[in-house]
Amino acid sequence: MTRHISPVPLAKASRLLHHGPTVLVSARHEGVSNVMAVGWACALDFAPPKLTVVLDKITKTRQLVEQSGMFVVQVPTVAQLRLTHEVGNRSLTNDPDKLAEIGVELFRMDGYGDLPFVQSCSAWMACKLIAEPHNQQTYDLFIGEIVGAWADERVFKDGHWHFESADPAWRSLHYIAGGQFYATGESMVYEEES
Amino acid sequence: MTRHISPVPLAKASRLLHHGPTVLVSARHEGVSNVMAVGWACALDFAPPKLTVVLDKITKTRQLVEQSGMFVVQVPTVAQLRLTHEVGNRSLTNDPDKLAEIGVELFRMDGYGDLPFVQSCSAWMACKLIAEPHNQQTYDLFIGEIVGAWADERVFKDGHWHFESADPAWRSLHYIAGGQFYATGESMVYEEES
Repeated sequence: MTRHISPVPLAKASRLLHHGPTVLVSARHEGVSNVMAVGWACALDFAPPKLTVVLDKITKTRQLVEQSGMFVVQVPTVAQLRLTHEVGNRSLTNDPDKLAEIGVELFRMDGYGDLPFVQSCSAWMACKLIAEPHNQQTYDLFIGEIVGAWADERVFKDGHWHFESADPAWRSLHYIAGGQFYATGESMVYEEES
Repeated sequence: MTRHISPVPLAKASRLLHHGPTVLVSARHEGVSNVMAVGWACALDFAPPKLTVVLDKITKTRQLVEQSGMFVVQVPTVAQLRLTHEVGNRSLTNDPDKLAEIGVELFRMDGYGDLPFVQSCSAWMACKLIAEPHNQQTYDLFIGEIVGAWADERVFKDGHWHFESADPAWRSLHYIAGGQFYATGESMVYEEES
């Protein structure tokens, strides 16, 4: 399952988020793993690469992030539309078998302990929480330093997304509201006038 | 030029950013206006609606935001690919005629003084800076409360984007790197299984 996964140099890791996709955030603490969908995630810096994610106080994943100080941000695909919608709409607090029922499969990356990565995404960023209690309490805003990045080389290779040549099932999802998403669309390159 | 522009209720303003588009940030202070492209902008809250934008210290727009305490975040379109790329690659500091040379046309909204709005975008959010000096200095991260929102009803109406039925020139841009963008693509609606 992981044979197409290649490391992404940290200097290019923020590109995994530049197009503004909906992401999945996963974390684990004391044997409990969870995954949630997050529409509000954004690159924050290139070097060292950082990102922001907004995690509501009612979410179990937020607790796991605060307790463990680590999380994974991964980019789900059009093929994962149902999974993405469901992990965003069911809570581990009320629904302890949430992940199994939805069919979320987790895996580990060598060197990252038991940090849970979601199978079949297009890209993964292992993040170390940069504790900013004021932002977390006031705005539900969490800052992570990206300490490891990987992508499925069938859609991201040599530092670039290849949505235009990959199978359309690899496109990213961009959530709006009420179960509606837009997929990533056509590539457009601006050529300087000479 | 503004006859298709309708107010967006503040409760739905964050939807203008949910799909993760590249935005234009504009601001004005003491008679100087500027506009820059920002790939790292994100919704932060629903009520009152807030957003984050990352503004590098070298940018003139950042100075204008800090001085005036107000800014506009607007969503450019595929028809504005060249404009978006150029306002992001030319600096007012070195190039005082930047806006005129690129052909950026500004307008005002009633009730918002001389705050500069960029013509022909698909949506606009007037923002009041929520001063967070630590975030601004350490992370170049700015938080704004959205105090007014509008959209061009040819592409956003009744609280929803209509990219699937609008002219393709209205699609949003999602910047990657090196002049490459992806346009917003196909709409996908997840229907609950009954």
